[in-house]
Amino acid sequence: MATCILRINMTDLTYRVEDVPEAYKHLGGRGMTSSIVADEVPPLCHPLGPNNKLVFSPGMLTGTAAPTSARVSAGAKSPLTGGIKESNAGTSWACDLAAIQVKAMVVEGQPKAKGKFWGVHLAWDAAAGKPKVEFFDATEYAGKSLYEVFPKVYERFGNKVAVAGCGVAGEYGYCNAGIVYNDELRRPSRYSGRGGLGSVMGSKGLKFIVINDDGAPGVQIADKALFDQGRKKMTEALLTHNITKPKGTLNSYGTAALINVLNEAGGLPTRNFSSGRFEGAGSIAGEAIFDGVKQRTGKETYNHACSPGCIIHCSNTWYKPDGTEHTSCVEYESAWALGADCGIDNLDDVAEMIHLCNAYGLDTIETGTTIAVAMEAGVIKFGDSKGAINLVQEMGKGTPMGRILGGGTELTGKAFGVTHVPTVKGQSMPAYEPRAVKGIGITYATTTMGADHTAGYTIAPEILGVMGKQDPLSPEGKAGLSRAFQATTAFIDSSGHCLFIAFAILDIASGYEGMVEETNGVLGTNWSAADILALGGSILKKERTFNEAAGIGKAADRLPEFMKLEPLPPHNQVFDVPDSALDSVFAEL
Amino acid sequence: MATCILRINMTDLTYRVEDVPEAYKHLGGRGMTSSIVADEVPPLCHPLGPNNKLVFSPGMLTGTAAPTSARVSAGAKSPLTGGIKESNAGTSWACDLAAIQVKAMVVEGQPKAKGKFWGVHLAWDAAAGKPKVEFFDATEYAGKSLYEVFPKVYERFGNKVAVAGCGVAGEYGYCNAGIVYNDELRRPSRYSGRGGLGSVMGSKGLKFIVINDDGAPGVQIADKALFDQGRKKMTEALLTHNITKPKGTLNSYGTAALINVLNEAGGLPTRNFSSGRFEGAGSIAGEAIFDGVKQRTGKETYNHACSPGCIIHCSNTWYKPDGTEHTSCVEYESAWALGADCGIDNLDDVAEMIHLCNAYGLDTIETGTTIAVAMEAGVIKFGDSKGAINLVQEMGKGTPMGRILGGGTELTGKAFGVTHVPTVKGQSMPAYEPRAVKGIGITYATTTMGADHTAGYTIAPEILGVMGKQDPLSPEGKAGLSRAFQATTAFIDSSGHCLFIAFAILDIASGYEGMVEETNGVLGTNWSAADILALGGSILKKERTFNEAAGIGKAADRLPEFMKLEPLPPHNQVFDVPDSALDSVFAEL
Repeated sequence: MATCILRINMTDLTYRVEDVPEAYKHLGGRGMTSSIVADEVPPLCHPLGPNNKLVFSPGMLTGTAAPTSARVSAGAKSPLTGGIKESNAGTSWACDLAAIQVKAMVVEGQPKAKGKFWGVHLAWDAAAGKPKVEFFDATEYAGKSLYEVFPKVYERFGNKVAVAGCGVAGEYGYCNAGIVYNDELRRPSRYSGRGGLGSVMGSKGLKFIVINDDGAPGVQIADKALFDQGRKKMTEALLTHNITKPKGTLNSYGTAALINVLNEAGGLPTRNFSSGRFEGAGSIAGEAIFDGVKQRTGKETYNHACSPGCIIHCSNTWYKPDGTEHTSCVEYESAWALGADCGIDNLDDVAEMIHLCNAYGLDTIETGTTIAVAMEAGVIKFGDSKGAINLVQEMGKGTPMGRILGGGTELTGKAFGVTHVPTVKGQSMPAYEPRAVKGIGITYATTTMGADHTAGYTIAPEILGVMGKQDPLSPEGKAGLSRAFQATTAFIDSSGHCLFIAFAILDIASGYEGMVEETNGVLGTNWSAADILALGGSILKKERTFNEAAGIGKAADRLPEFMKLEPLPPHNQVFDVPDSALDSVFAEL
Repeated sequence: MATCILRINMTDLTYRVEDVPEAYKHLGGRGMTSSIVADEVPPLCHPLGPNNKLVFSPGMLTGTAAPTSARVSAGAKSPLTGGIKESNAGTSWACDLAAIQVKAMVVEGQPKAKGKFWGVHLAWDAAAGKPKVEFFDATEYAGKSLYEVFPKVYERFGNKVAVAGCGVAGEYGYCNAGIVYNDELRRPSRYSGRGGLGSVMGSKGLKFIVINDDGAPGVQIADKALFDQGRKKMTEALLTHNITKPKGTLNSYGTAALINVLNEAGGLPTRNFSSGRFEGAGSIAGEAIFDGVKQRTGKETYNHACSPGCIIHCSNTWYKPDGTEHTSCVEYESAWALGADCGIDNLDDVAEMIHLCNAYGLDTIETGTTIAVAMEAGVIKFGDSKGAINLVQEMGKGTPMGRILGGGTELTGKAFGVTHVPTVKGQSMPAYEPRAVKGIGITYATTTMGADHTAGYTIAPEILGVMGKQDPLSPEGKAGLSRAFQATTAFIDSSGHCLFIAFAILDIASGYEGMVEETNGVLGTNWSAADILALGGSILKKERTFNEAAGIGKAADRLPEFMKLEPLPPHNQVFDVPDSALDSVFAEL
């Protein structure tokens, strides 16, 4: 019994179980998906054509007892950016994929016939000692809300399975379609949201991937003692740090705790990135969610885990005025994109839009920033939350307006002739204003992913004071900071850990040691902290090489023109990082 | 009295008359617009933002008695391709601009207020010995058909003026909006159609540019005898060659004479580039137009000139069954794009769509290829000509569907998740199938303009046998052929001559000599044929440098993936020109 690469061919509905090549042996998560995409996908292929490949890979530690490590990476050439894409999510699906010995699942080809959808069911074949695959007709699940069809899939395959899929957005081929995974209550709420990977899945006629890990051997650990030593250090760090500890920031207020913090810092993008401060911030902030849940349910509730083995527990559930569940989860990015960036301060309406995004399989970030651009174009007014809900519904219906918006922020800007469009490499910026937080602007500009905060989260030092506070308004030294964060992140995204461990391990040295030891324990390697940083850097280089071959080079490592021309209130700063500093991020990698 | 650069600032409605810099002294047309754009426009600016500039320049010979030389180039950073763009048209407006001594008109800036439109009125100030400019409120002309407002502009400024403008497409910011000019009957029918330049004009709040050349000195000629010698040779060649002579191919059947020729060659793109042959070709061909006009008007009619001094006379007018005028002009590209590429063989419906494109200010090529992609997506069926007319009307109304289609072929493909999208650098391919005519495919792939037949019209030797027939299906030697055509074309586009002189001067050596002599006669230069080719090459290099800085490099010099994968009937060939040959076009320039 050894781990394998599982190849699913959607052209003829066949599969192959292959040995893991030597060069991939120690890869996982982003390192694995980006390597396979870079090695196998023609950089100039059409993202929705037969030559693109959709790769899933659990992290190196995923499926083990390492805390907060249940992440799976999805990767492909992105329909949104035209470049390489990795987007990871926390879900039991990640653990189950690891448990059945799949280091990478590569979905290839494309059915000739349109309009038909398939599911694949993965399980452990104990007799053969390898995973097995069955294909099933999933056309009956197409064209419907994921909230409607997820329960049907569970009814059919049993409550123990894990489910990944795409919604109608992926069926339509929207550039902002995500890949959905189950959460711990079997809700369709966890996402590889960014970059349109849901449409790569849809373009292959693949609707669901169901995993049953009954009897599966689970993840093998090379040096159990070392692994246990490492995970204990990691656990200790997470349980100690103010941001990650029980009843700490994330457990109490969720990621939306950042709303008030960024608003205070003047870095909360408001009304399509025209201000860094939103007068309605308090109404959509994590504290308001905490208080609102208490009021509507009658009890003080701390957040829950999105996936098995997480000890941070940052996911919330929002409730209707009558105390019944509305949606999960109201993340910072979602509350900001569908709230502040649209000038909307009504939490119930924001929650309704998040619920609709989950139902249709849409990326909440790209959806919110897109509606904000439509507001800029005058389609509806800023602050019109009912109008915004209606626009999300149009996306679900696939009307012409829905197709514009489903195409994402940049396409919507083009369709309406808007010049104020906050994108890099075709992907919209998330919830940190680069004119108010310069380091994150460098990450947006230079990451291989298109504008992406998770690719090099310099917010940690610039706003949260992790590793010591750095002045967010200063461009000084930020290229090096972004580079270090990008390389470290490429490793963390490969480890299977949630990026939120970074708060703790960057402040607590033993936590970082723990991550290194866990990894060496599982893989049987002898990596140093420097080796880990080098591995991260090597992943970035592979991604960058792919992008350059796809035509995405230095000129794409820039923020949109308006951010260099228009000073942002309240600090009245433009983005003043010189191009040479942006170019140095990869030149000096 | 000397020629000048005229700068119009739309931010504050001011203008400046400047001397022509030494380096620009001998430039005209494309050479001038591309030089100014390359020298002054930030390559990464937003095409519809304040830092883009819209440049008009009459050719070197425009306004003289050189035959068929009344072209004006418009240039800017293109909203469609994101790269440099030049698009030229034949119109009296070109001659009038030259007559008032304007070598280049540079429209800069952008009004702060949205929704208001301005006109500029150019005239000759005899006292000052230079052109003068008046601004007028043109908001009353916005939002209406150009057929409705052109007569009003003529009523206001007199029938002697020439008019350039944008239609509602340019007001909306569509990527497929063209710039319209008057023809000889003051109809809004001549176009700088490609690349969305109409939206650059609209983004500057500029609706019309009216020129009155009363009292203007006209174009100065350095060596009248040499000029006359040259233009006589050119005239002789044009009057002799079968394609360009009176009652020859173009004068009889117009450019649409090519429909049957390309169909016969298996190179007429049909139903969104899925075949090279259209069973309804005969019904939309130049011969059918000639016969139809005769039948409906009761007289045999040869074509008319689009602009003063043209001796080719290739423009037709189409008539309704009752003998009244329907529209002018039914060009090959328009009949193909709105006909064969959409599977439509009804000439009246094709003419109606051309009429609507003229009314709204749309590029007919991009409009047709876009509708074909919408047909591929299932929006309407191939061949549904009434449905297609309705889609063009949606574009005129600015509905969500109209905005998708107005965004062009590539945007429409993205919005509908279509992979079969015939574009290069974001611009749709014109009416020659690269899998059936390999040389033109090299031009499409490598020209700085995005897919563009006029940039290097290898159709002349590959299909029409000009300079001796070359096998269209063979890729051999075609990179060099395309390179030579591209460089020569960059010169012709600078001269002010219509590209159609090429048929005659490539076959008749004295015609080519004539072009060199005319040019030297006007400019007082002593250029050889080699100098002219070198000048063309230097223009291409400037354009390429701009594109590279805008992020459009080698990876963008490729045809879409499907043309390498899907054999095209009837020859069942894929596009088999190796990437190395594509790269050699500019590497060896």
